[in-house]
Amino acid sequence: MKITRDSMRSTTRGFERYYNPDVGDAIRLDTNTNVLGSNPAAEKFLSTFSARLDNYPNTYSDHLRDALGELYGLERENFIAGSGSDEMLDLVFKTFSEWGATSTIPTPSYTLYDYFITMNGGSSDFVDLTEDFQLDVDAMVKNKSKIILIPSPNNPTGNSFRTKDLEEILSRAEGVVVVDEAYAEYAEDSMVRRVNEFNNLIVLRTFSKAYAMAALRIGYAVSNMDVAGMMNCVKIPYSLNMVSELAAVAAVKDQSFIEKSVQMVREQRPYLMDGLRKLGFHPYPSDCNFVLAKSPIDHKVLVDGLKKKGVLIRDFGRKRRTENCVRMTVGTKELNDMLLEKMAEVIDEC
Amino acid sequence: MKITRDSMRSTTRGFERYYNPDVGDAIRLDTNTNVLGSNPAAEKFLSTFSARLDNYPNTYSDHLRDALGELYGLERENFIAGSGSDEMLDLVFKTFSEWGATSTIPTPSYTLYDYFITMNGGSSDFVDLTEDFQLDVDAMVKNKSKIILIPSPNNPTGNSFRTKDLEEILSRAEGVVVVDEAYAEYAEDSMVRRVNEFNNLIVLRTFSKAYAMAALRIGYAVSNMDVAGMMNCVKIPYSLNMVSELAAVAAVKDQSFIEKSVQMVREQRPYLMDGLRKLGFHPYPSDCNFVLAKSPIDHKVLVDGLKKKGVLIRDFGRKRRTENCVRMTVGTKELNDMLLEKMAEVIDEC
Repeated sequence: MKITRDSMRSTTRGFERYYNPDVGDAIRLDTNTNVLGSNPAAEKFLSTFSARLDNYPNTYSDHLRDALGELYGLERENFIAGSGSDEMLDLVFKTFSEWGATSTIPTPSYTLYDYFITMNGGSSDFVDLTEDFQLDVDAMVKNKSKIILIPSPNNPTGNSFRTKDLEEILSRAEGVVVVDEAYAEYAEDSMVRRVNEFNNLIVLRTFSKAYAMAALRIGYAVSNMDVAGMMNCVKIPYSLNMVSELAAVAAVKDQSFIEKSVQMVREQRPYLMDGLRKLGFHPYPSDCNFVLAKSPIDHKVLVDGLKKKGVLIRDFGRKRRTENCVRMTVGTKELNDMLLEKMAEVIDEC
Repeated sequence: MKITRDSMRSTTRGFERYYNPDVGDAIRLDTNTNVLGSNPAAEKFLSTFSARLDNYPNTYSDHLRDALGELYGLERENFIAGSGSDEMLDLVFKTFSEWGATSTIPTPSYTLYDYFITMNGGSSDFVDLTEDFQLDVDAMVKNKSKIILIPSPNNPTGNSFRTKDLEEILSRAEGVVVVDEAYAEYAEDSMVRRVNEFNNLIVLRTFSKAYAMAALRIGYAVSNMDVAGMMNCVKIPYSLNMVSELAAVAAVKDQSFIEKSVQMVREQRPYLMDGLRKLGFHPYPSDCNFVLAKSPIDHKVLVDGLKKKGVLIRDFGRKRRTENCVRMTVGTKELNDMLLEKMAEVIDEC
């Protein structure tokens, strides 16, 4: 039997590989990881790790779930842990969506949501954000989707959504509402501590951004114990490896690096935005460690020009609602000065 | 909106949590990991690991796929790597199965296959093995399933299937044939090096058994480049963390521990089986690091009695075709003597 693309699941048949640039030695301001480098508590843990590798990890990552319970004043059974928040996204669909179901996501938002919806045999109900990149509450609940997915703060726009809008969507939704807080450490608000107030709230968090542990692939979901229990029953057992789990525990217990990282972003974000404005960019408000900005020159000329100078930023210029926009990670003062200087050179040269 | 089990995907609604015994200090002969302890090359790698944790791992685990290509004389693009062979199983369904599709699995075999089939909205066509636990080739292809799943060597029975039977199923199947070689290091035969001969063969392998790296959750699939390419397009990017990937590379490049482990099992397996026979067990032929055996006393009395003495083995006694059978990992001579002695005590006491 010859296997061709026609043999594939009807909804994954058209999938291509993910954004995977040949980066060489370039400075990466395109992935929004923590520019201060590795999480020191996790590094310290790894340097002394010596458990037996032949044993399976804890089936449901109880060590990490206990540490998170302590951090947030919640219980172990409010949490589901796994290999990146990507696994948690996939798990939401495996737990709560039927084949052919429509899930609602705002647009523009994280590009991988549609991938997980489609992979699980569903289709996406894309709902435009308002002019100022806020949620259109009526439109978000109109289709009565069993799953509504909302990143807050939003990627790539950078802003948080209003808490009252999230609350209204939670109360009017006919299924679960997933609030993806990948960048919430940098923002003022979070829904994590409020999961027991709602029947249908699932919050996603990651160790890949402020925690500076993307290499270890750790993510988790938080919900009331009923919903979390359902998800743990569907989750692949042992999906989080032992090294990542225990490094995450060490990182949770030492919050000083997170505080320092957040403080740095809160100082440097206005500095970077100010520099961008002086070059003719229009930067959008951000509660994240990245900034979306409309470019004063053609987006592709800008991104390619920076790449030639050894700096990667992410191009959103061809997409609707972010026409001619680029997204860049907020760096240290040195990185931001370097970026602004190279941007000025590219603008001068074109 | 109150979320209850009725809100769950129709096919995952009945899921419960996985086998998760409270093990305490018990000696675990129930999971078939490597009794010689951690993989030393992986341990050595970990003790010197110092990469930056803030960067994402390689998107498609190219370092590991290159090392595996060298090991088997294949190319990087013959491989898909991820977080355990469990992720690879899930990926097979995401890539090749539609909702409601029937997938064929022999019985008895690995209990989690049905979980992955059901989780992906399908149903299982269970095909009985013959009296001597071999494949019923006609029955395996009769339902024209798009996915046929075969563990070889088989778990929990322990025997390999005949290569000519696998070849016949591959040639008569109307879709992909997944040969799960979780224990193949202990057996004489493997299909890995032959993936380019077949249009529809997918082989799964793991680092959790002979490689003694279950803690790190590493698995991979091997197929011809067309099929592997399709699977890589559907796979979650970055799903294998950097530490596990690089530890796996170190382990692949140093085969001495694997050879020693396999040699130990080949010597101790007949010793253990001989001891079991003397106690009145009926052990079945095994090509694995475990043995399935019919107990001379009630299976539950045996398993509970051993547990009280601090040794865990796995109970299959209530399942059809393995009535009154238990499964135990082949230990070192010391472990096997200890197990046989405690078994004798339990038998005497009852």
